[in-house]
Amino acid sequence: MKSIIHKGWEVLKFDGDISSVEDEIIASEFPLTIVLNGQEFATMVCSPTDLEDMLVGFLASEGIIRFYDEIKSMSIDEDRGFAYIELYKPLESIQIDHSKRFIGSCCGKSRQFYFKNDVKTAKTVQTKHTITVNQCYSLMNQLQEMSIRYKETGGVHNAALGSLDRITIMRTDIGRHNALDKVYGEILKNRIPLEDKVIVFSGRISSEVLLKVSKIGIGILLSKSAPTDLGLKLADDLGITTIGFIRNHKMNVYTHPERII
Amino acid sequence: MKSIIHKGWEVLKFDGDISSVEDEIIASEFPLTIVLNGQEFATMVCSPTDLEDMLVGFLASEGIIRFYDEIKSMSIDEDRGFAYIELYKPLESIQIDHSKRFIGSCCGKSRQFYFKNDVKTAKTVQTKHTITVNQCYSLMNQLQEMSIRYKETGGVHNAALGSLDRITIMRTDIGRHNALDKVYGEILKNRIPLEDKVIVFSGRISSEVLLKVSKIGIGILLSKSAPTDLGLKLADDLGITTIGFIRNHKMNVYTHPERII
Repeated sequence: MKSIIHKGWEVLKFDGDISSVEDEIIASEFPLTIVLNGQEFATMVCSPTDLEDMLVGFLASEGIIRFYDEIKSMSIDEDRGFAYIELYKPLESIQIDHSKRFIGSCCGKSRQFYFKNDVKTAKTVQTKHTITVNQCYSLMNQLQEMSIRYKETGGVHNAALGSLDRITIMRTDIGRHNALDKVYGEILKNRIPLEDKVIVFSGRISSEVLLKVSKIGIGILLSKSAPTDLGLKLADDLGITTIGFIRNHKMNVYTHPERII
Repeated sequence: MKSIIHKGWEVLKFDGDISSVEDEIIASEFPLTIVLNGQEFATMVCSPTDLEDMLVGFLASEGIIRFYDEIKSMSIDEDRGFAYIELYKPLESIQIDHSKRFIGSCCGKSRQFYFKNDVKTAKTVQTKHTITVNQCYSLMNQLQEMSIRYKETGGVHNAALGSLDRITIMRTDIGRHNALDKVYGEILKNRIPLEDKVIVFSGRISSEVLLKVSKIGIGILLSKSAPTDLGLKLADDLGITTIGFIRNHKMNVYTHPERII
């Protein structure tokens, strides 16, 4: 079983010009190549934990599957870093439009920013539930406390699913998108109801993060970090309440403040 | 001309439970689709500055070109987010092995971690020049001071090329790899000699960052952030001195300390 951290890397440490040699804990980075229906599909570089959840979440994010039971089998060879996934449907029926840009007829409006596979899978979030300012602060505090174990490596992100009062699932990865995919995979596997849920996140609110949250189908995103303008345009368009820079009992609400009470 | 920052996003700010509405500066995020010899090749999500440098550096990083003058023409449509690049060589002669894993016969050693195109382009760095501890602290201070303008957005990375005493080129991007590609492109365009140069970087030292530094051909990498174990294994293998966590007159030397005096 691989771990998020690698112990015992020998480091020459300087404090001013005084040096010492110490063993340090370093974040693990693991390349995992996905072979889908016998064809090499993508390589993810990730923290080597919760790999099955990550793969399920990734395939759903990419628009390859919609439900967990579309997967016929999955086996992971951790030593060589390969995941073999068989789907019930043949690969030819899967439109792989990963990197293809979607330029709709509505050029100039925000929909022009979507990738082709996102046009199919990103959806406007319709949930109406609300959250208080103190619940936002408290959920971010919980994320920080739960992630304290990995703080010393200084190089990992956390994504969590929470109800209004409590974090229920937290996943860690060196890649912020992977951390979210791990949460998404767990949601799909266990068909977790999402009506009153929020995503609590340590990383930057980019367009890709926003698209993932919309695909998962959650209307409130809390983050410790900053957003990008494209992330906010998508949040505005997709009906997601985006709250960033949640630190020291302060926060910024960037989009859809109607869910904050 | 597009900018790294987007001014005037209206934000509902909370300090405790006291709210106010203010205009904020947000980092711009810009999708740029590369059409290479008439074929859609990749979409990069980036800060919309120094795009030509970034494209040159990206093509070199991907092993598509080795020299700037392999590019016949390049035009960028900033409004629609497309870059049209023509190379002198036909696309069929370019082996595009982006995401293909390279599993050599030496499985178990670090070479197994390379991607196919990296096997061709990553090279062991042979430079022998040295750097003092105080030069490391000073270069990182310069990077911090030069980047102060963007600090308020909280969401950008900086990469710089420096001699031992002074930063000569600095580039900024929301993506840390893009920031490095922008520096790489500038180096290729101007055929900058690299013998006594260092890379100064704000982001995490991942395997991808290490591979880029080795392709550029620089033997000393300074970063404010943490490394990953795979990044360090590659640094060890490729002969690169890796120094991380340079903060408050402290730093960690992870690999090849023989260049530190």
